[in-house]
Amino acid sequence: MAVVKPDVNLSELFDRARRASRGLARAERNATLLAIADELIAHSQEILSANTLDVEAERNKGTAASLLDRLTLNVKRLADIAQAVRLIAALPDPLQRIQDGWQLDNGLRIKKMTVPFGVIGMIYESRPNVTVDAASLSLKAGSAAILRGSANALNSNRVLVRVMRQALTKAGLPADVIQLIDSPERRLVTELLEARGKVDLVIPRGGASLINHVVQNAKVPVIETGVGNCHVFVDSSAKLKHAQEIILNAKVQRPGVCNSAETLLVHQDVAETFLPDALAALSEQGVELFACERSRQFYPQAAVASEADWATEYLDFKLAVRVVNDLDEAIDHINQYGSQHSEAIVTESLENARRFQDEVDAAAVYVNASTRFTDGFVFGFGAEIGISTQKLHARGPMGLAEMVTHKYLIDGQGQIR
Amino acid sequence: MAVVKPDVNLSELFDRARRASRGLARAERNATLLAIADELIAHSQEILSANTLDVEAERNKGTAASLLDRLTLNVKRLADIAQAVRLIAALPDPLQRIQDGWQLDNGLRIKKMTVPFGVIGMIYESRPNVTVDAASLSLKAGSAAILRGSANALNSNRVLVRVMRQALTKAGLPADVIQLIDSPERRLVTELLEARGKVDLVIPRGGASLINHVVQNAKVPVIETGVGNCHVFVDSSAKLKHAQEIILNAKVQRPGVCNSAETLLVHQDVAETFLPDALAALSEQGVELFACERSRQFYPQAAVASEADWATEYLDFKLAVRVVNDLDEAIDHINQYGSQHSEAIVTESLENARRFQDEVDAAAVYVNASTRFTDGFVFGFGAEIGISTQKLHARGPMGLAEMVTHKYLIDGQGQIR
Repeated sequence: MAVVKPDVNLSELFDRARRASRGLARAERNATLLAIADELIAHSQEILSANTLDVEAERNKGTAASLLDRLTLNVKRLADIAQAVRLIAALPDPLQRIQDGWQLDNGLRIKKMTVPFGVIGMIYESRPNVTVDAASLSLKAGSAAILRGSANALNSNRVLVRVMRQALTKAGLPADVIQLIDSPERRLVTELLEARGKVDLVIPRGGASLINHVVQNAKVPVIETGVGNCHVFVDSSAKLKHAQEIILNAKVQRPGVCNSAETLLVHQDVAETFLPDALAALSEQGVELFACERSRQFYPQAAVASEADWATEYLDFKLAVRVVNDLDEAIDHINQYGSQHSEAIVTESLENARRFQDEVDAAAVYVNASTRFTDGFVFGFGAEIGISTQKLHARGPMGLAEMVTHKYLIDGQGQIR
Repeated sequence: MAVVKPDVNLSELFDRARRASRGLARAERNATLLAIADELIAHSQEILSANTLDVEAERNKGTAASLLDRLTLNVKRLADIAQAVRLIAALPDPLQRIQDGWQLDNGLRIKKMTVPFGVIGMIYESRPNVTVDAASLSLKAGSAAILRGSANALNSNRVLVRVMRQALTKAGLPADVIQLIDSPERRLVTELLEARGKVDLVIPRGGASLINHVVQNAKVPVIETGVGNCHVFVDSSAKLKHAQEIILNAKVQRPGVCNSAETLLVHQDVAETFLPDALAALSEQGVELFACERSRQFYPQAAVASEADWATEYLDFKLAVRVVNDLDEAIDHINQYGSQHSEAIVTESLENARRFQDEVDAAAVYVNASTRFTDGFVFGFGAEIGISTQKLHARGPMGLAEMVTHKYLIDGQGQIR
């Protein structure tokens, strides 16, 4: 069982993180990441034993199998985690990149260069692999990480963090580059979110309620991630075979993730030809359907959708279905109910494709493809810390490029104004 | 006198802004800006009369002359304001810029393109020119503006906004692209700051207390601007003539702005040669000095600095002075007390210049130049909405490039995952 430390002093922890972060941009971050990967493998037994404690405690509570699976580590998964750290080491350095540079008439030379945030807080749920992933990406980006996982993974997270800290020490870096908030107390999350000036950025990763709690309480800069109420709109000119493949893929290939589709919108002109087959195919895959009255004319087996269905991120084998009069109604529906994550149109109309991409307000807007592609690895970023659904700083899949900030370096020879 | 409308309904105002913002990216924004400039000139008399009401009301309250001056418009200043709008029209369009683009192995083509935020709120103080400036930059950036000026400029702001809205209508755009929160009630600021999902970004522009209020209360994304506790560090190898010119310029050329210097740090090895002359020159310019004990050995006329002086943004003819042992102590002092705005070292040492630029955590880090250059116009951005002192999204001078966000456009031919 987790031993709660009631006297966790976050203020000291923040100061230690700040001190540890100094100079990280100029340290051997890649060698350290490789040391972390090695240390994780070397301590497999210890990590898996701690993880077993967490999994057993949850099993005794009667936690659902899918959640137990997310929490569970094994030799193969731990090897994958270590391998992911090695891949992060192999990525290009996001720091010290000159993004722009120019000279003023007075001879001043200005460079815009990427630099670390400093101290990054991560608040996340269940999966212990996020502990290693977040710490490694922060380190690569030159920032100290303050990790706050969920209570049910505390034993796993403790050992993972201890092992990573050992690797930091061996590599000659301060262990405080990676710190865990080692207590399940909720007030500590609030304290982290209010640590203005102490913590430069907090990234929450988890379900809608976690994200909402963070956004409502944060006084520090935050990047909202991962709530996806995504739509597929089948336009009147769509190739219906493509449309059916896309909605099936977007819904059932992995329904528990944020880029899966939650509502199918269908142009009225193709509702009769498209809906019976498409909805039968979805139903056959175990998808429960919640449909508007017009849709139910063509597929009466579907349940009746309520207003709440349009706004729901099911993350499950469930799909809302609605017939719309035209492209405008589809765009309006998406802009009203969507979470600005990933939206797709299936169409052969150049004009409608252009209008959909212009007028839908979302991080990723697809023409004739599944929403499931919104992912840092798929996009080729080599890493992903989350998928931002906000407009400030990062939008869409976030890789290392979004985990750094910049400064202006200005070189003169005595210039005054 | 201002007529307070107690029933201002911000929720409706936000919805009108959202509707007005749709399609703005594809509207004739530059022609509309020129129409705004013309309309401002055509209504000079009306604007100046309203402004006189504001100025007289403040004069009767016994407001300081410098503040009255900031509030005052006249024919020349109004012409400058209109000219600034024309210059904004002439700037390159920040929207629809393809920032990156690539193809995946499966044939999907991804483009990263700049798009508007949507609805931008501006909260600012006294100066009525900000009303036009903020509205024009928002329009250029494709976003609807919600303006909240200070109570003492309400008559001026009302007429300025009415005139700009007339221009919008004449140009065929919705008047609600520009809206004023037409009441001095404080709760409306709070409502604006809590309008998550309704307002995409709030930019506060004003003094430390305004910025702090916004940052503490905002549930919407915010870009912090303009608090500048800036330092000039004179290293042991500095050309002392340059050093004196730079600190004089950084302090006295315009002490009321955020990029002016507030503390002078001097390496102990040059304190004796540098301080007597430099401090006498500053004193001669009317600068009040607050110095550490070691500095006062060389200039006893200075007052004794307290801890609070290191943390104070005077925005006045006042300067804190401190002798430090070395570069490390200078960097530590700046990182402890600075506001991450603009910091300068005067040095002939390549190594110390590099270390200062690397290790000082600020938006703009200068070698051998005055901190006064941190400015969107000086940097060549052609506009400035503020100077960001945060690390998320924008850091340092913010022009149009920082007033837009981006989306990913993905084009496929039926791809699924």
